[in-house]
Amino acid sequence: MNNNILIDGLEYVNWTRDLFEKAHAGGLTAIHTTLVYWEDTKESFDKIDYWDNLIQSNSDILVHVKTSSDILEAKKANKIGIIYGFQNSAPIANDIFLVEKFFNRGLRFMQLTYNNQTPLAGGCYEKHDSGVSRFGEMVIEEMNRLGMIVDLSHAGKQTCLDAINFSKKPVAISHANPSSFHQSIRNIDDKVLKQLANKNGFIGLSLYPYHLKNHGDCKLEDFSEMIKQLINMMGEDSIGIGSDLCMNWPDSVVMWMRNGKWTKKIDYGESKDKNASWPKPVSWYSKPEDLSGLISGMISNGINEKIAHKIAGKNWLNFMESHF
Amino acid sequence: MNNNILIDGLEYVNWTRDLFEKAHAGGLTAIHTTLVYWEDTKESFDKIDYWDNLIQSNSDILVHVKTSSDILEAKKANKIGIIYGFQNSAPIANDIFLVEKFFNRGLRFMQLTYNNQTPLAGGCYEKHDSGVSRFGEMVIEEMNRLGMIVDLSHAGKQTCLDAINFSKKPVAISHANPSSFHQSIRNIDDKVLKQLANKNGFIGLSLYPYHLKNHGDCKLEDFSEMIKQLINMMGEDSIGIGSDLCMNWPDSVVMWMRNGKWTKKIDYGESKDKNASWPKPVSWYSKPEDLSGLISGMISNGINEKIAHKIAGKNWLNFMESHF
Repeated sequence: MNNNILIDGLEYVNWTRDLFEKAHAGGLTAIHTTLVYWEDTKESFDKIDYWDNLIQSNSDILVHVKTSSDILEAKKANKIGIIYGFQNSAPIANDIFLVEKFFNRGLRFMQLTYNNQTPLAGGCYEKHDSGVSRFGEMVIEEMNRLGMIVDLSHAGKQTCLDAINFSKKPVAISHANPSSFHQSIRNIDDKVLKQLANKNGFIGLSLYPYHLKNHGDCKLEDFSEMIKQLINMMGEDSIGIGSDLCMNWPDSVVMWMRNGKWTKKIDYGESKDKNASWPKPVSWYSKPEDLSGLISGMISNGINEKIAHKIAGKNWLNFMESHF
Repeated sequence: MNNNILIDGLEYVNWTRDLFEKAHAGGLTAIHTTLVYWEDTKESFDKIDYWDNLIQSNSDILVHVKTSSDILEAKKANKIGIIYGFQNSAPIANDIFLVEKFFNRGLRFMQLTYNNQTPLAGGCYEKHDSGVSRFGEMVIEEMNRLGMIVDLSHAGKQTCLDAINFSKKPVAISHANPSSFHQSIRNIDDKVLKQLANKNGFIGLSLYPYHLKNHGDCKLEDFSEMIKQLINMMGEDSIGIGSDLCMNWPDSVVMWMRNGKWTKKIDYGESKDKNASWPKPVSWYSKPEDLSGLISGMISNGINEKIAHKIAGKNWLNFMESHF
């Protein structure tokens, strides 16, 4: 156990006891973990049951955290704090009352969209982004009231601008990179990033290969250079890591993430060569415990030590403190 | 029993045996009846069970029709043919495979939206209409394949234009009037109507008071004048009646239709004076069997007799024949 606060702002890992032990040994303080993508209401409550049980079964090293002070308590107790999140609003369907029901089960992050349009907002893959709909505004108000973080990952540009502007509490893009670093449907353009910073919003930087320059061959040096430019644009407090680390899943899962049940054809997402497999991760971030090594990596690439520590966890903690 | 084909292209009635008997005595050939607005998948299958049972319980005068030849058979057997429809796509959530499952249970009309945005398209009450989304295109293709009518009532303008253009089979606006007759969020502007006609689409004219000039005081003379102008614009084959007759429901139902579970505030729909009650119907169309009287009403207001009969049912039948 070390004294660093290490928070990964988004992971989707098919956990085993062994993987949890390694993450624990690697000093992870907290992980925002994705529970669902396309699941409906019932399936989403079932996933929460599954995760409650998973944490219970590993309660010597894990704890489900619902407040930022829970995260600090977890740290003291030498456990990894698990934060629940949904990468879509499919679980709430058209029902505003479900937001609180999921909140009461511990949900602390919810995306308005996952690539496609939802009743709330426009997805990043749509030809025309509606922006935030009238139901979307109701849901954002409700999330603000409860203290659930509005996550704009996988949203369209207009939706990002609308939500940043409409939300009374700062919003997050939990896992993406600047488009200026790498042009990708999922990455975020400077106009949005500047608006985000103006409203005290937050971005978690992604290590998902399709979000990186040179994909799985991206150099830590280039990633660090991106961070330096982003600090210059957004300030040192608004940036964290949301690795989007996807680990230990069969290829069928990446195809399911892309296709859900919304198409009978095959959609390959950002894979231009129609690759139906998981993309190869960068060598320097292929497992949860690599977050610790990223600190020294950032420092050796010229990022101020204090800032590197903030990016690796403290910033996320501060941001979460303003919500829950 | 008479020889007229009388088809109401949309009704939402809280039926009793007495009401069915009156509609039957009034010579109704077929009614497209709304089963759901905001219901989710499970609730929608339950509504189909409810309707299957309702028709079974009144099988001396009703029959569930699944093809246009079923409608002619119903006519011969002196029964009213009931056509199932959904006024929203909430039942299919994000699942393309549910379209066929509902089709197999007899669903023949489905709206892409009900006022609000859905994963498929934009609603008429949204500030920004996305048009048809990528999931929406998949669903339209699937509806085309199966023979389920794409209904654009309650959709936004861009969604109407996109769907008219994208659908390989002609689409319908089952219940609305031209905006040129009465300015209303739900009514349809001329650009859309002309496109609709160009692509062999169909409109069912509405008797819902908020869609009428002078609301519940609208004169049959004015309604007939609108029809004459519309015949001039769209041709005599593309027009029917979709009365949107809502009957025998408590006021709580109109509020539920407007609000579903998408808002905790109260939305009053098109009621500018925030009326939480059902609007008063016009005296000349307050019950299903008034469709018969509308024929003579149209004729006495100068509509050609043959055309009046087409509008009262034959046009709908022809349109349905091109789908199922």
